[in-house]
Amino acid sequence: MNLTILGCYAATPRSLTNPTSQVLEIKNHMFLIDCGEGTQVQLRKHKIKFSRINHIFISHLHGDHFFGLPGLISTFRLLGRDKEMHIYGPKGIKEAITLLLKLGDSWTNYLLIFHELSSKESELVYEDDKVTIETIPLNHRVYTNGFLFKEKLGERKLNIDAVSKLNIDKAYYHNIKKGKNIFLDDGREIKNELLTFDPPAPKSYAFCSDTTYKPNIIPLIKNVDALYHESTFLESEEHLTERTKHATAKQAATIAKDANVKKLILGHYSTRYKSIELFKEEARTVFANVELADDGKVFAL
Amino acid sequence: MNLTILGCYAATPRSLTNPTSQVLEIKNHMFLIDCGEGTQVQLRKHKIKFSRINHIFISHLHGDHFFGLPGLISTFRLLGRDKEMHIYGPKGIKEAITLLLKLGDSWTNYLLIFHELSSKESELVYEDDKVTIETIPLNHRVYTNGFLFKEKLGERKLNIDAVSKLNIDKAYYHNIKKGKNIFLDDGREIKNELLTFDPPAPKSYAFCSDTTYKPNIIPLIKNVDALYHESTFLESEEHLTERTKHATAKQAATIAKDANVKKLILGHYSTRYKSIELFKEEARTVFANVELADDGKVFAL
Repeated sequence: MNLTILGCYAATPRSLTNPTSQVLEIKNHMFLIDCGEGTQVQLRKHKIKFSRINHIFISHLHGDHFFGLPGLISTFRLLGRDKEMHIYGPKGIKEAITLLLKLGDSWTNYLLIFHELSSKESELVYEDDKVTIETIPLNHRVYTNGFLFKEKLGERKLNIDAVSKLNIDKAYYHNIKKGKNIFLDDGREIKNELLTFDPPAPKSYAFCSDTTYKPNIIPLIKNVDALYHESTFLESEEHLTERTKHATAKQAATIAKDANVKKLILGHYSTRYKSIELFKEEARTVFANVELADDGKVFAL
Repeated sequence: MNLTILGCYAATPRSLTNPTSQVLEIKNHMFLIDCGEGTQVQLRKHKIKFSRINHIFISHLHGDHFFGLPGLISTFRLLGRDKEMHIYGPKGIKEAITLLLKLGDSWTNYLLIFHELSSKESELVYEDDKVTIETIPLNHRVYTNGFLFKEKLGERKLNIDAVSKLNIDKAYYHNIKKGKNIFLDDGREIKNELLTFDPPAPKSYAFCSDTTYKPNIIPLIKNVDALYHESTFLESEEHLTERTKHATAKQAATIAKDANVKKLILGHYSTRYKSIELFKEEARTVFANVELADDGKVFAL
């Protein structure tokens, strides 16, 4: 599981910093999360193949999380895309994109499938045999969801020594990896746990931006391997969080600690601060394993 | 009159090239022409003060000329703008911007005034005491206008030697500069042309992108000081111009020659070509004074 940060700064794009967008590579998927202005250029810079993106998740309809999407959709068309594209985002996203395509008479040659979200409860929005994706309802100035990406428990790993010693035919490996016991030619039943090891623990990643400090997301994100939580402010600007519906680095760390996550990644920094290191210092007073997102940074999770 | 090219490449933004946007500085105005994705970052890079932009002209509603506008409007709000902003563009532009602001619940604190265009004839869209701006109807896949910026003829220049010799009181200078004759104390009438020189010739600039070769714009842009004309293709791809409604470098040069313009600036290059110098070479076979637009280039006109 790899996370590439394309942009992680609040508000306006600047010469050297980009608004929110990131790519999560998980089980051969490339999921694009948020799409601020300039995302398509960031994708090119970081050599991410456009054709590998088939699912885009938009947290909310503020410009710094969403104004790169119309251009990216148009670019997919110019690149000759024909595979369908799934877009998950707040109700209204379909109307906005459709209007822009209509005004430019620039309909896509590929199918755009919108999954509009409006529930205030967490819901499963994607599932295949290897991954699930659920929404994490957040508290921001407009309707906003985070997203929880979870690998499913994989197949059991074959204990090669054990199956060799028992001369088990390869034809049975498939069932063994599924967890089944098998019967030898002499009629003996061999328990699966003697033939296999536990599969690797499935990984999970939670993206939570933008939001105030919202402790009731904790049950949803409990024990995740990595939590990206917005930290627009430091505690010195905590008084701004209520009006703007953002969080501080310390609040993000408190969520991380109470949810017992393995790693906290901070981002969505207000550009008022001279150094983003301050966010890490503040968060570390509450929670040890803190990392700072930055544009272009890749986290191997 | 200065023209700053913020972006001049066709289709998608890339790491090192930007879609169409330019700033024309004329008589203390900063007019923004087109606003592809990334325009606000280009404005920052080239240190153009956001607050000096009060009028934005959008040629057509294709993404590479327009998808930077929602973000720019939002950034003006974040910067605390309170002056009104005038936006000139095809019918539909108001609906698009309004919908995006509504979905983000991000209404501007300043007044956005839309001047929606739908006429197929050239029309005067802006006038003050120093400048006029008219549309140049173009021929593209969607409704498109170029824009013709013209300085008005200024005041006549005082012939200091002449007025001194005649001991004319400074109180009369205002009327003299307006072109009036004056009467000396002894009753003699002095013709204005003995007291003044002609004012400098007013400058003019025509922006024509995107369009096919369209000779009927020639009367509108006759004798302009500078013509920016799109040249998406070279003649070798002339067969693509009819379907895509774009022009070649040679066609742009033919328009320049037939309109007797002083300088032709080429732009809106397809990214299929290895070098933009090829556009200049081709255009120069028809018209001598050709320059190439490029991102970041400033033309003092």
